[in-house]
Amino acid sequence: MTELRDITLDDIESLAVGAWILGTGGGGSPYLGLLNMRRLYAEGFRVQLMQPGDLADDDWVAAVSNMGAPLVGQERLTDSRTIARAVSLMEDHTGIRFRGIMALEIGGGNSIQPLMAAAHLGRPVIDADMMGRAYPEAQMTSVAVGDLKPYPLSTVDCRGLEAVVQTVPTWKWMERVSRKICVEYGSIASTCKAPRTGAEVKQWCIPRTTTKAIAIGSAVREAQRRHEDPIEAILSVEPGKVLYRGKVMDVERRATEGFLRGRTRFDGVDGWKGSQLEVAFQNEWIVAWQDGEPLAMSPDLICVLDTVTGEAIGTETIRYGQRVTVIALPTAEVFLTPKGLQHVGPRAFNYDIDFKSVFA
Amino acid sequence: MTELRDITLDDIESLAVGAWILGTGGGGSPYLGLLNMRRLYAEGFRVQLMQPGDLADDDWVAAVSNMGAPLVGQERLTDSRTIARAVSLMEDHTGIRFRGIMALEIGGGNSIQPLMAAAHLGRPVIDADMMGRAYPEAQMTSVAVGDLKPYPLSTVDCRGLEAVVQTVPTWKWMERVSRKICVEYGSIASTCKAPRTGAEVKQWCIPRTTTKAIAIGSAVREAQRRHEDPIEAILSVEPGKVLYRGKVMDVERRATEGFLRGRTRFDGVDGWKGSQLEVAFQNEWIVAWQDGEPLAMSPDLICVLDTVTGEAIGTETIRYGQRVTVIALPTAEVFLTPKGLQHVGPRAFNYDIDFKSVFA
Repeated sequence: MTELRDITLDDIESLAVGAWILGTGGGGSPYLGLLNMRRLYAEGFRVQLMQPGDLADDDWVAAVSNMGAPLVGQERLTDSRTIARAVSLMEDHTGIRFRGIMALEIGGGNSIQPLMAAAHLGRPVIDADMMGRAYPEAQMTSVAVGDLKPYPLSTVDCRGLEAVVQTVPTWKWMERVSRKICVEYGSIASTCKAPRTGAEVKQWCIPRTTTKAIAIGSAVREAQRRHEDPIEAILSVEPGKVLYRGKVMDVERRATEGFLRGRTRFDGVDGWKGSQLEVAFQNEWIVAWQDGEPLAMSPDLICVLDTVTGEAIGTETIRYGQRVTVIALPTAEVFLTPKGLQHVGPRAFNYDIDFKSVFA
Repeated sequence: MTELRDITLDDIESLAVGAWILGTGGGGSPYLGLLNMRRLYAEGFRVQLMQPGDLADDDWVAAVSNMGAPLVGQERLTDSRTIARAVSLMEDHTGIRFRGIMALEIGGGNSIQPLMAAAHLGRPVIDADMMGRAYPEAQMTSVAVGDLKPYPLSTVDCRGLEAVVQTVPTWKWMERVSRKICVEYGSIASTCKAPRTGAEVKQWCIPRTTTKAIAIGSAVREAQRRHEDPIEAILSVEPGKVLYRGKVMDVERRATEGFLRGRTRFDGVDGWKGSQLEVAFQNEWIVAWQDGEPLAMSPDLICVLDTVTGEAIGTETIRYGQRVTVIALPTAEVFLTPKGLQHVGPRAFNYDIDFKSVFA
């Protein structure tokens, strides 16, 4: 028998904080998604959480995300109806009826997209995702590492633009074609990815990541209420590591080809005084160098947090003078295989560095 | 009772010549399509022609074309299977079963696309199109002038790329989104446009244009065989007008945004000695100026022909030194209404000129 857990509005408040930390700088701020969910809950909508283990092998699951440059999400605001439409367009297109809705990526605002679709469509949210964090490109998922079918993919826009990428020869071609559609829509589109069976979700997706994000966010919020150290609170629920503490000295940022790219430089404080950190990003934080030496890199999660509140700082909002603590969290194991590293290791982002985990 | 006429290979040889003339410089050379049809006929395939009047009101018709920059069609060669796949993708997507297949545009190689699809799929070709010539953009059709639904549209590529534009708010948005997909495929895609009912075809499409193209081509080929003037032969079957005779002096050509744009300048001979002609193109010949004064313009058909053979010269192949005769042929009446001129008059191509027909 399937057990569904009610997601409370307090859970969603925690999810917004925890998912932003797991976003590793990207995935878009969860704030506008949170506002949508506050409104939906005030109107009486409710959402439930379902464990992937409770899926039948032949159930169908919709994987959703808003695709595009995070910066654009600050101009074209999140609307819960477009992501629901991306799911129903996929149902119209394939004839599939989805059992539940899951996140493409648990990191950032995309953690809340399945909740918005679930509220409108009356389906549960599946407690899993395909990244365990956020990543910028279509082929950077556990299901792409597993060589599952990359298509079809539906795209929706608030002005009534709807397109389906029906077949592609490779995951990279899915990235290329869907990215151009997204850019023409204005660098943001609500998308439903290739439908996944229950069997595929159980074999390839990363389980319990919604629960994990809620737990992280809950720990941070509890520490804030008690005036305790929120960074310590995160490390009490996740096996992470403090990498650096410092101050933002410089940000170089540009929105290109549907991505937000750039670098940030920090000056150390406390035990890191006199030491410099530089972090490169493509939507997400990808590689960190301490005094010119690689310190941490994808797929390890690099999280740049506000030292006082413990909340995440995004690549689209980081600015001069902020006091930050940089922590690493471990990646899902699927990305540590040779095939996984081909998809999301430093060379997948054009950095000629051998992957070395900070947890090795 | 529906009467189907067999299309002979000789008809297709004439269609290739006549449609290239109706292409007004664009639509792509029919030569590679003709080679495909010669091979298909050698393999035993046959195609039949059906009059639009024989369609039931609730029949469905597929309108097809290869979309993109004509120049690219000289590098990525025509394959009859991609256009057939664009039609079957639309059938898969909509659940519609098409009664027949028609051309988006009778001009150029796109006149032969429905024959290739028809051969593979075993359906008749409908003797009609939506332009009566060739035009570069999605909203430049009789069905767009009629404000019929612009979507869905399917796109297919020889490497297995397939995408469907499912909904758009306007014809211009269909042009924008489908053009970007086409450009990402490499500036050429086989497409099936929005399915049309028999009633829509009978009310809005331009009838008997396949027959017309065959008749024009047949007249030219007959004149060539008899060493008679092929230009006169064209004017004996179509109510056209000779505008100019001269020699190509200069060609300025660039492939941009999925189009081929530029200008050609001519020096006059015979009765036009001392007079200069300049013709601007966007895939097709759009406006002709004689000694700086507008002489002819869209929607009138401007056809630049080889003076000796009477065959058309395309905007992608015209070159210095060619001897040409420029003739005008009348447009389909749907484009002469105020709404029609909004879609294809000179201002639709950003020329601030009031339309004046050479036949007025």
